[in-house]
Amino acid sequence: MSKGKLPITTRNVLSMVYTPGVGRVSQAIAKDKTKAYAFTGKGNTVAVVTDGSAVLGLGNLGPEAALPVMEGKAMLFKEFAGIDAWPICLNTQDPDEIVRTVQAIAPGFGAINLEDISSPRCFEIERRLKASLDIPVMHDDQHGTSVVILAALTNALTVTGKRMEDIRVVVNGLGAAGTACCRILLAAGLSHLIGCEPRGIVLRGDGQQLRACRTDLASCMTPDRPQGTLQDALKGADVFIGLSVGNILTAEDLDLMAADRIVFAMANPDPEVPRELAASHCRIFATGRSDYPNQINNALAFPGIFRGALDVQARDINEAMKLAAAKALAETIPPAALSEDYIIPSVFDKEIVPRVAKAVAAAARDTGVARRRTKLSDDFASSLTIQPT
Amino acid sequence: MSKGKLPITTRNVLSMVYTPGVGRVSQAIAKDKTKAYAFTGKGNTVAVVTDGSAVLGLGNLGPEAALPVMEGKAMLFKEFAGIDAWPICLNTQDPDEIVRTVQAIAPGFGAINLEDISSPRCFEIERRLKASLDIPVMHDDQHGTSVVILAALTNALTVTGKRMEDIRVVVNGLGAAGTACCRILLAAGLSHLIGCEPRGIVLRGDGQQLRACRTDLASCMTPDRPQGTLQDALKGADVFIGLSVGNILTAEDLDLMAADRIVFAMANPDPEVPRELAASHCRIFATGRSDYPNQINNALAFPGIFRGALDVQARDINEAMKLAAAKALAETIPPAALSEDYIIPSVFDKEIVPRVAKAVAAAARDTGVARRRTKLSDDFASSLTIQPT
Repeated sequence: MSKGKLPITTRNVLSMVYTPGVGRVSQAIAKDKTKAYAFTGKGNTVAVVTDGSAVLGLGNLGPEAALPVMEGKAMLFKEFAGIDAWPICLNTQDPDEIVRTVQAIAPGFGAINLEDISSPRCFEIERRLKASLDIPVMHDDQHGTSVVILAALTNALTVTGKRMEDIRVVVNGLGAAGTACCRILLAAGLSHLIGCEPRGIVLRGDGQQLRACRTDLASCMTPDRPQGTLQDALKGADVFIGLSVGNILTAEDLDLMAADRIVFAMANPDPEVPRELAASHCRIFATGRSDYPNQINNALAFPGIFRGALDVQARDINEAMKLAAAKALAETIPPAALSEDYIIPSVFDKEIVPRVAKAVAAAARDTGVARRRTKLSDDFASSLTIQPT
Repeated sequence: MSKGKLPITTRNVLSMVYTPGVGRVSQAIAKDKTKAYAFTGKGNTVAVVTDGSAVLGLGNLGPEAALPVMEGKAMLFKEFAGIDAWPICLNTQDPDEIVRTVQAIAPGFGAINLEDISSPRCFEIERRLKASLDIPVMHDDQHGTSVVILAALTNALTVTGKRMEDIRVVVNGLGAAGTACCRILLAAGLSHLIGCEPRGIVLRGDGQQLRACRTDLASCMTPDRPQGTLQDALKGADVFIGLSVGNILTAEDLDLMAADRIVFAMANPDPEVPRELAASHCRIFATGRSDYPNQINNALAFPGIFRGALDVQARDINEAMKLAAAKALAETIPPAALSEDYIIPSVFDKEIVPRVAKAVAAAARDTGVARRRTKLSDDFASSLTIQPT
């Protein structure tokens, strides 16, 4: 909790911000729960929830070890989007318990950011929480990353003169981020997708098949019957998106792909193929690293997505809102400024959060999940009347 | 979450405070969970947990309506004790669910402040959480209030020249605060106690009987067989402590008491007996109100108690720590300055929190519940080595 707006230095202030003054506020909210948005900090808060089962790329380190990561995330929420976020590190890894706990703490928060929860548990946990809560729930490892990938790919296609409907995309690594990446690309119009796991191709289809199972991608996968190797998948592909492990591709592998190929090698800290190798074997190369050009960083997405959702008191963060976020993020770079080494903006570009937030809020309104049409300003809040009791 | 110590304005800072830099911190904590105290904010955080079942004196208003009260409390933690507190308003009033939820979120916090949970559920919930968690758990409605009452009574006895062992005390209203008040007074040496509920006297005994059942006061109560009225209880009593409802006593009732009588009429907003009536019928009069002298306000106790417990990374807030807090609080007024209208200091006295914290920390050390002997200073934290991985 940040400091309040009034310094508590006199009995009068104390009796206003705490008892007995606060009693009137409580009674107003008891009569109409939605007044919590006007009279408390609820509408500007996010719980950053983890069970410590997939901390960064380091594995199942437990809730205490996850705490510094969640604290860092909370700092980014505050710095980039002015959101009061708080780390909630859970002492359980049972999906039922996680769902129950987040449901129990939800009333005090405006939104839930799930973080570093291992796959495939993360899918069920997010689905159940989205279905049961009236505030937005987003697993950032899935959707923050996938939104930035879609934005980067959109601009990469502009640079290479290709179209989403025509390209063939290989996604390697179908964990949380890879699965969400497949889903958002299909939602954005992709028609040819191959998904690979370490054993080989486990997801393959034309657009119609894949779109049909977009809401349940897992049912399209054939993990027990790989239909070829990663190298088979790469033949003629326009785009490789790696969300797997470092150093699994060679220059020869890249040469299997189509001309003007695009390679997003996002494994951390070592990309799926070293930049030194890849540079002369693809047209556009992006990674998750801050020391290379084209850093695909989820910090480009989540602050603006949550800012926009909170601004209109959204009930959900839905697919339309994610697509709108990706489009707004891509458009922060004017087409004329795009280049092979500049397909995605810097996280320090101050225009990103307001632009993404505005687009997300508009999409929330258009899809009927916004409680408010416009941001609740302080003026409006102070004009609301609390009746004395 | 407050802002961090470093402004996040460059890629280098971002990569230190978030990925990949934070990974080393996580791995160090994964090897030794107690390092969370040195490397994260855990050791300076308190969860302010409620189920909204007893919001102020207003009743069962639910978790949303409790939120502004918990926010006010969090502000007091920050303003008075520099503690980062966060409101957790639970969407359940089932004791099992409450216990399970608080256990689940505990790893990220240094202590748990239970608040506005109705009696008698609050006793079981606190007991089970204290037994199962390795961080302090305190239900402030019980213990914050009782600590301040003990401090005020200690000074009132000095003013009136009476001794704890000799006095007869009537506590009216055996809810959360009243029960805790009985227990701390017995622990402080009280030998003659009568407890009343609306139906009359339900708790009566000499010191030995009562001390024997001090850990389970409920077993000494006879709610089905009242042993007299409140007026019967007042006959010859030295002290009346009301934690009940307003305007239940008359001047004639007070005249039943012993000479130099002490009346703590804590019902809010109207005391058990109006100040105008009581003033000429007792020697010392205290209330919970800020507009009268002698305000018994739990904000005098909880900031220093939690500050002291966190400073030594205590595992518990035990009875010795509460008694030490009451003693330190009483002693903030020099004996020569005590008077009928000045038995308890102002919440704005800057000496209170450091003095109470120091006494609480010492008691934690003396009773073996402190993980550290001294406060973890920033210098010490920065001298710890994180091994690169």
